[in-house]
Amino acid sequence: MPINWYNQSVKISDAGGENAIIEIARKASCGLPVERLGLGIGDDAAILRFGEDDIVVTCDLLVENVHFRTDWASAYEIGWKSAVANISDVAAMGAVPRHALVSLGLPDADLDFVRDLYEGLGSACKRWNSAAVGGDTVRSEVLVVNITWIGDLAGASAVLRSGARPGDLLMVTNCLGNSLAGLRLLQNHGRDGAIEVSAALVNSHLRPTPRVEAARAMTATGAVHAMMDLSDGLAADLPKLCRASGVGARINSQDLPISSELVTVCRTLGWNQTEVACVGGEDYELLAAVDRERLNEVSEAARSAGSDVTVIGEVLEEDRVILVGSGGAESRLPDSWEHF
Amino acid sequence: MPINWYNQSVKISDAGGENAIIEIARKASCGLPVERLGLGIGDDAAILRFGEDDIVVTCDLLVENVHFRTDWASAYEIGWKSAVANISDVAAMGAVPRHALVSLGLPDADLDFVRDLYEGLGSACKRWNSAAVGGDTVRSEVLVVNITWIGDLAGASAVLRSGARPGDLLMVTNCLGNSLAGLRLLQNHGRDGAIEVSAALVNSHLRPTPRVEAARAMTATGAVHAMMDLSDGLAADLPKLCRASGVGARINSQDLPISSELVTVCRTLGWNQTEVACVGGEDYELLAAVDRERLNEVSEAARSAGSDVTVIGEVLEEDRVILVGSGGAESRLPDSWEHF
Repeated sequence: MPINWYNQSVKISDAGGENAIIEIARKASCGLPVERLGLGIGDDAAILRFGEDDIVVTCDLLVENVHFRTDWASAYEIGWKSAVANISDVAAMGAVPRHALVSLGLPDADLDFVRDLYEGLGSACKRWNSAAVGGDTVRSEVLVVNITWIGDLAGASAVLRSGARPGDLLMVTNCLGNSLAGLRLLQNHGRDGAIEVSAALVNSHLRPTPRVEAARAMTATGAVHAMMDLSDGLAADLPKLCRASGVGARINSQDLPISSELVTVCRTLGWNQTEVACVGGEDYELLAAVDRERLNEVSEAARSAGSDVTVIGEVLEEDRVILVGSGGAESRLPDSWEHF
Repeated sequence: MPINWYNQSVKISDAGGENAIIEIARKASCGLPVERLGLGIGDDAAILRFGEDDIVVTCDLLVENVHFRTDWASAYEIGWKSAVANISDVAAMGAVPRHALVSLGLPDADLDFVRDLYEGLGSACKRWNSAAVGGDTVRSEVLVVNITWIGDLAGASAVLRSGARPGDLLMVTNCLGNSLAGLRLLQNHGRDGAIEVSAALVNSHLRPTPRVEAARAMTATGAVHAMMDLSDGLAADLPKLCRASGVGARINSQDLPISSELVTVCRTLGWNQTEVACVGGEDYELLAAVDRERLNEVSEAARSAGSDVTVIGEVLEEDRVILVGSGGAESRLPDSWEHF
């Protein structure tokens, strides 16, 4: 019986988008006796038990014209960013990145494009002590990049999304919203025009940095109760951390760390900087719930590892996520990124 | 500097197709000090050293209208076959499949399509004691499925492509060419028409079986010097095994195991059955180079694990792969599948 699956009744977008699919995946895997499984679907990475140290595995699928455009991003940048998306997930578990499997779907492109893509990927590998150990290469109409990254905890304990406790302080590394601002500039002005407005913001979007060293240093204090990386943006990711931990959160909008570049661009272009910082994805900064008594220790650890940290709010017992405005008015977080 | 990577000078297809990309990947990873790496790019799976037992990791990327068509294959079958392609690679290393990471790129499809896809995937997981432990889900114009599978050697030693020795016998499990015959029937007659001609051949294409049990049993004898799964077809895969081992091979065309269904269809439709058996990919049968003295032992092991085996030729010292016809005439293997 042939299937026409494009025009049927209950679409993914009507059913809850990515979360609906995660539920299906969870159910399909449920009830199976799985050997060597530490943690399955639902965190930045899965945890597998193969030796004295647990390993973590994660993957990211990037599709041309959905996640990147080849007239904005060079092959090098696509390779770099594909690596970073994964390395960031490994880091957010408190693990050390090790090995990558690279699946490429490609048109019959110029071979130099592939070489540049691998060079970008290889640069990220070199910087974070990893290597491509395998993969698959197939023909495709548009560029498709799926990378799987494997890391190990190297003696540390994994830091999950589910460990946040009421009273914990919520902190993020560095600044939020730079990547979305860079994307919007690219959308509005093309690559050359966007770089003219703000090379720094465009760079944040095209060549993000995963916070590997900060994650390890913060984790090593033992005072980080929960952590994840901000890949879909605070407004999407904080509720995930809260749901996983069975808690709520209060965020103060005036405490969101916003770069001077973003402030300037928002002022010039009339953007709402709080909204950009809340909904902006792909910053790959860390969001952590930290023992209130040990804030200084964690901040110091992050700073010594090259990342500023800012307390943006706190974990609540009640099951809601609220944003407190500058006048003290409470609101919900702005609508967040959804794939469908 | 914007890049137009579709219309440039040296295309992938001109540079050697997938092999050219594998070379780039190898070079990009070369020279890095990689911890816990047993084996990198170039076999059915990579080998990582995380504990007392090595683990293996492999991935496969499938793209709609390149690797499957949704008017031929149901969502269940796409999920099943995506799993099998990976499980087969894990098995061909002599390892036990354990965990899957599933990346899906999807249009805003009917949610039941996703449910059926996961059901097919889940059935394969159940049958071979695995589970989906993570993944990624994104929007895409066409369906994209990338699965990464992790297995462990569970006390066994990995069997590589590189261990074949001159004098070894070459054997394959079960029959060759059924999957390609099924594909051709689907191409020529559509799903319903193809099933009418031969449900068995169509089934071989849409619901292949990985030879997990046979691989373990054959490996356990210690007499298998090299092994790989036939995913691109004998004509593409045997030369890979020979290159990895630094040997050649002689195959006897009249010894190729061909199912009675394939014989019948070839006779009816005027297909050359040797050509179908040689170039046909996606059979997921095993190709093994086996100690000549211990042939019976390996055959018995495979049969006790549910797979017939056939000796199709032998490993040569000289660096060439030849096919001996029924009259004794020698020729090269037919042109094989290439992604680009």
